[in-house]
Amino acid sequence: MQKVFLISTGTELLLGNTQDSNSVFLSRELGDMGLRVTGKATVGDSKTQIQKAFLYGLDLADIVISSGGLGPTFDDLTKTVASEVMGCKLELRSEEEARLREYFSRNQRKMPEINIKQAMFPPEAEVLKNSRGSAPGMYLAKNNKLIILLPGPPHEMQVMFKNEVKPRLERDYAVYMQRVVRRTIKVLGPGESRVEELLGELMTDTHGCSMALLATDGEIHIKLTAEGKDEIASQKILDELTEAIKGKLARHIFAYDDETLPQRVAGLLKEQGKQLAVAESCTGGMLGSFITDIPGSSEYFWGGAITYSNAAKIKILGVSPATLEEHGAVSRQTAAEMAQGIRQVSGADLGLSITGIAGPDGGSEAKPVGLVYIGLASADDCQVKELRYVGPRDAIRKLTTRSALDILRRHLEGIAIRL
Amino acid sequence: MQKVFLISTGTELLLGNTQDSNSVFLSRELGDMGLRVTGKATVGDSKTQIQKAFLYGLDLADIVISSGGLGPTFDDLTKTVASEVMGCKLELRSEEEARLREYFSRNQRKMPEINIKQAMFPPEAEVLKNSRGSAPGMYLAKNNKLIILLPGPPHEMQVMFKNEVKPRLERDYAVYMQRVVRRTIKVLGPGESRVEELLGELMTDTHGCSMALLATDGEIHIKLTAEGKDEIASQKILDELTEAIKGKLARHIFAYDDETLPQRVAGLLKEQGKQLAVAESCTGGMLGSFITDIPGSSEYFWGGAITYSNAAKIKILGVSPATLEEHGAVSRQTAAEMAQGIRQVSGADLGLSITGIAGPDGGSEAKPVGLVYIGLASADDCQVKELRYVGPRDAIRKLTTRSALDILRRHLEGIAIRL
Repeated sequence: MQKVFLISTGTELLLGNTQDSNSVFLSRELGDMGLRVTGKATVGDSKTQIQKAFLYGLDLADIVISSGGLGPTFDDLTKTVASEVMGCKLELRSEEEARLREYFSRNQRKMPEINIKQAMFPPEAEVLKNSRGSAPGMYLAKNNKLIILLPGPPHEMQVMFKNEVKPRLERDYAVYMQRVVRRTIKVLGPGESRVEELLGELMTDTHGCSMALLATDGEIHIKLTAEGKDEIASQKILDELTEAIKGKLARHIFAYDDETLPQRVAGLLKEQGKQLAVAESCTGGMLGSFITDIPGSSEYFWGGAITYSNAAKIKILGVSPATLEEHGAVSRQTAAEMAQGIRQVSGADLGLSITGIAGPDGGSEAKPVGLVYIGLASADDCQVKELRYVGPRDAIRKLTTRSALDILRRHLEGIAIRL
Repeated sequence: MQKVFLISTGTELLLGNTQDSNSVFLSRELGDMGLRVTGKATVGDSKTQIQKAFLYGLDLADIVISSGGLGPTFDDLTKTVASEVMGCKLELRSEEEARLREYFSRNQRKMPEINIKQAMFPPEAEVLKNSRGSAPGMYLAKNNKLIILLPGPPHEMQVMFKNEVKPRLERDYAVYMQRVVRRTIKVLGPGESRVEELLGELMTDTHGCSMALLATDGEIHIKLTAEGKDEIASQKILDELTEAIKGKLARHIFAYDDETLPQRVAGLLKEQGKQLAVAESCTGGMLGSFITDIPGSSEYFWGGAITYSNAAKIKILGVSPATLEEHGAVSRQTAAEMAQGIRQVSGADLGLSITGIAGPDGGSEAKPVGLVYIGLASADDCQVKELRYVGPRDAIRKLTTRSALDILRRHLEGIAIRL
């Protein structure tokens, strides 16, 4: 397997304000091609530092990929240094100079003479086209080592990697490459350790795939990866493992791969031609915001009410003052009246409500911070689920919103909701 | 100025799934102390790679700080390698062994013998206490070089850095340290280039402070940094520059430092004892969600309506069907009726409304995607501002929500809103 070392240049990356997203993108893309990133370094815009980084990288790996430092100014040193390190000389390429002048005239600007640097390359190098900016990249192979130079701005770098670098790596390193197939199974409901328990022996006997559990905002993502020379075989193994996992987790699985919970719910509502309306207290509009994040949500979303105060609950939803008095705003009864209320006001098929104590204040022994009721009213009945969360305000609100969507998802999929 | 090199160890950091947050934290903290990070590297859990990273770091810098690899297992190699590189030998420290055994018995577990590694240190080293886990850190100074080893989990690393590392660095490097004072001035309304224009000569004549403009989600953050031996003097310079910037940007400044726009609005509403209600169409609840993100928002937030459909606008807000018919849901007239409607329904002092086309579909030549109207109804009048945004759905929704809050902020501060 060929080893890759990544270099990011730019003093701003060392100040603690900026995350280096380029190396994360490249690690992922290279991994998918079966090339392994064995290390990475970030250095400032100084000649010595860039030089040492390249020497360090070439010592550790077969391929060194750097991003940044391809601009025209005095502190853009990467190409000069990388060429020196490989024992090559920069020469002006007339076709590149022409392209550069054309780039500037197209943008109605005169080319500053300092930019001529961007048309200079070693004779051994291939030039990588930049479809998003003026700085071309470089692909320089010599003595069994390969140096690839990419621009720093992520949108330029990513397009250049996909269009210019990937095909060349596939041309030169095909023999080392693995086909990687990935799948993500998304679960909501049980916690991470409960998911592990439910998976049981599948946690270790993964049919030769790699499996990782990632907990994110209350969701558990089961990440499966299969790799090998034969993509179809890998795909088949992944399908088998997915079926086995489905057998264990069944109703807790809400989506696969890039699909999100709001998207899944949107799909179900559209399929079933049902309209939804919401009534939110402690989430204050977050549920509506998640739902309308999906383009085209007007097809199945009527709207709803942000009934943050008791007055709003009474006025818009018709919640009875006696219920609020007797059981409180955070209660099974209020959640039910909210769901039924918004269903009635809207005339929608389904009314989904949330009431709870998001904290940090407002909790009591009987009703602690994190106590939440979610109500779902349909033509047939009105169900209310009680939940108890622990954590900061923001986390409680997000978990509650996700739970409300998941209760709706289970209802639409015909799965009984455990109250 | 002393130079620092950072090393993060851990194969998982090279797969492209995980951001290396430790190095970002350390860059920031060290920068605040006046120590300069000149480079950083990430390597997998292999002995050769870790060794080469330390040699590379010691070549470039005076201080090398690594995180990760202090656990008890066979692939936790950092301490062994770092000690070797510094020419030191690991020896068992009986007081550390006792502390470790105590740690395990406190957690009702028997110490696995493999953990004894965590009690071994070179005689020259200072042990750094880990108040959050079993792995102690190490502070090893020799021959004008310093190596600091920290654990990988961010919450362990951060506490150890603050309690154990900072005091030692202050003890040993006081002579090199600068006092750094920072301020962020937050602006909403003008774009980045307009802010630069308004600042004019202040962009270059910064009284010796450093100034950086950061555009984030429609806000412009002006980041000022002053450093020097004398913290009070730096503070004074920063205050003067802040006053000069205030003179130029005046009403566009909505907050300083950590205060957010919703927090600023919350403060103003509380100060003035005013209650707010909202009516949202294209943002679908995002405005309510931003407002209720602030603890204690029930003091000034009544609630509101998510009137995503025309039916909802008519039913809850009493928007006239004739208005919707004649001018459309996305119009100055509808925004006004929405704001007035929610003000009337709620009885709140202020009604804030949003209607717009978030896209990607639904636009026309006359009313393109990104066209937004924000209405604000008070006892005195009802103002509507038209805005035009370009970008993806999510960005348009966020920018719209921020603008609505900023219009409210300006109203509460008595600044005339340019319609």
